[in-house]
Amino acid sequence: MFEKISIIGCGLIGSSILRNLNNRKICESFTVFDKSNEVIETIKKKNLCKDISSDIQSAVKNSDLVILAVPLSSYKEVLLSAKDHFKKNTIVTDTGSVKKEVNRIFETINLSNIFWMASHPIAGTEESGPNAGFKDLFKDRWTIICANKNSNKDKLEKLKKFWEFLGSKVKLMTVQDHDHILALTSHLPHAVAYNLVITAINTDEKFKNEIIKYSAGGLRDFTRIASSDPLMWRDIFIDNSENILKILDDFSKNIDDFKKAIVEKKSDKLLKIFASTKNIRKEIIKAGQDVASPDFGRKKD
Amino acid sequence: MFEKISIIGCGLIGSSILRNLNNRKICESFTVFDKSNEVIETIKKKNLCKDISSDIQSAVKNSDLVILAVPLSSYKEVLLSAKDHFKKNTIVTDTGSVKKEVNRIFETINLSNIFWMASHPIAGTEESGPNAGFKDLFKDRWTIICANKNSNKDKLEKLKKFWEFLGSKVKLMTVQDHDHILALTSHLPHAVAYNLVITAINTDEKFKNEIIKYSAGGLRDFTRIASSDPLMWRDIFIDNSENILKILDDFSKNIDDFKKAIVEKKSDKLLKIFASTKNIRKEIIKAGQDVASPDFGRKKD
Repeated sequence: MFEKISIIGCGLIGSSILRNLNNRKICESFTVFDKSNEVIETIKKKNLCKDISSDIQSAVKNSDLVILAVPLSSYKEVLLSAKDHFKKNTIVTDTGSVKKEVNRIFETINLSNIFWMASHPIAGTEESGPNAGFKDLFKDRWTIICANKNSNKDKLEKLKKFWEFLGSKVKLMTVQDHDHILALTSHLPHAVAYNLVITAINTDEKFKNEIIKYSAGGLRDFTRIASSDPLMWRDIFIDNSENILKILDDFSKNIDDFKKAIVEKKSDKLLKIFASTKNIRKEIIKAGQDVASPDFGRKKD
Repeated sequence: MFEKISIIGCGLIGSSILRNLNNRKICESFTVFDKSNEVIETIKKKNLCKDISSDIQSAVKNSDLVILAVPLSSYKEVLLSAKDHFKKNTIVTDTGSVKKEVNRIFETINLSNIFWMASHPIAGTEESGPNAGFKDLFKDRWTIICANKNSNKDKLEKLKKFWEFLGSKVKLMTVQDHDHILALTSHLPHAVAYNLVITAINTDEKFKNEIIKYSAGGLRDFTRIASSDPLMWRDIFIDNSENILKILDDFSKNIDDFKKAIVEKKSDKLLKIFASTKNIRKEIIKAGQDVASPDFGRKKD
């Protein structure tokens, strides 16, 4: 389907894509670039890619699909390096979690003769780096493509096929809807998890060990998300600040109402709040987006 | 070790205890009482207990270990029914998540000739009822016993042995420390999860399906906790209101600082916040309180 695929950045996402390109026919060749020597060593050691590029320019050369899998704050630098070296009519996409600001960067740099369409695979774990990637990361997950009515239909179809090749389901969405929905489903949960864990660990010294010991009562769930890649999340909160701040305000208002219900000992109101959230988990499981077994099916030993 | 053990209430916890008493020698006999006919039918169907009591009075009769595994709001009713029927010198314990208010109830009812010591197994799942219980629920988890210097040492030792028999590790703690620590490790996470999910689902009608579809970006983690038993959690928030309100205030303050850092685009501060929470997960895993595999080891299909 492609002659050459280029992956810029080889962390969890980039390396998981690479793990799908070996031995399966979607392209004649593929290359990877990463600015970290440590990452390059891992790629070699794990045989993730035979053709490792030494710079961005040669990585994108002659490629008809370029995938940016770097932190949002690196896009500008990568694009400025690559801009005069893209193959004519190549598809450029990404894997980032926020789209509005990224689109602005592409408009500013004004790349001609390429087809830019943003992608966002809703897949990942709390781990990062090329060792954390795995082949089935995208399987049965959704990938959102932010195309618009000016997007080239053939190129869009090819990009869609690429994500489907990785096992993903694809949904088209506007940039605005994407950034709003992800603020709700991903950015808010991360903001809350980080702040919850900070609140719990900033306790008296004498309780520090106890917090860890008794974390199975709920806290441990939040520590998973709160151990995600700090740099990636810094970029997300800066880039999607408008949506996130609005939703954090809604959240703070709900917390205030909740506190009021406790202060006033309004049992019925509390019961109503707790009962109102029961169904969504069932729907998420029904939609294949989580496992049905209790405790996420955590192994008991 | 015991002649007769009585379990009052047969939900997730009560039924998990029952599943350990069958075929293993810790008592000559054991009985269970539950006021729900549906629960009684499940106990019969699953052969969880041969001796099902038809009322609380006969359940506690001649028993030397009585375990309350009912919601906190039912303790008073259960104790008033049982008070004149306890065997002399019996151990009475419970499995509830808050201790201060429960102790007050015991003091008010002024039960003489029994040994009351509160227990709290830090174990559970988002599911409830006798079908949700399982034998290994307590394995490698902690059980907190709130004894005090007036507690009878032999009785305390027997209670400790009972929880260890279920596979649990035991820690002694004051009521005050228990209610504070659990507010941090369990009650705060539940308050936050419920309010987070409410914030996410109270979105425009047009986004409702999207919230479910893209929940793998973080939201789904919180829906697990937010699908816990509403009645149990109402009781916890009423009983431990003092600790919870104080901690929710700390949490709200952290959220406000976080919003300020976003508004002011303070990258370094955000990075510092995100980096500060990374270690606790490692410590929790090291302490055997969570699995090390990414995504809680959720199965991929």
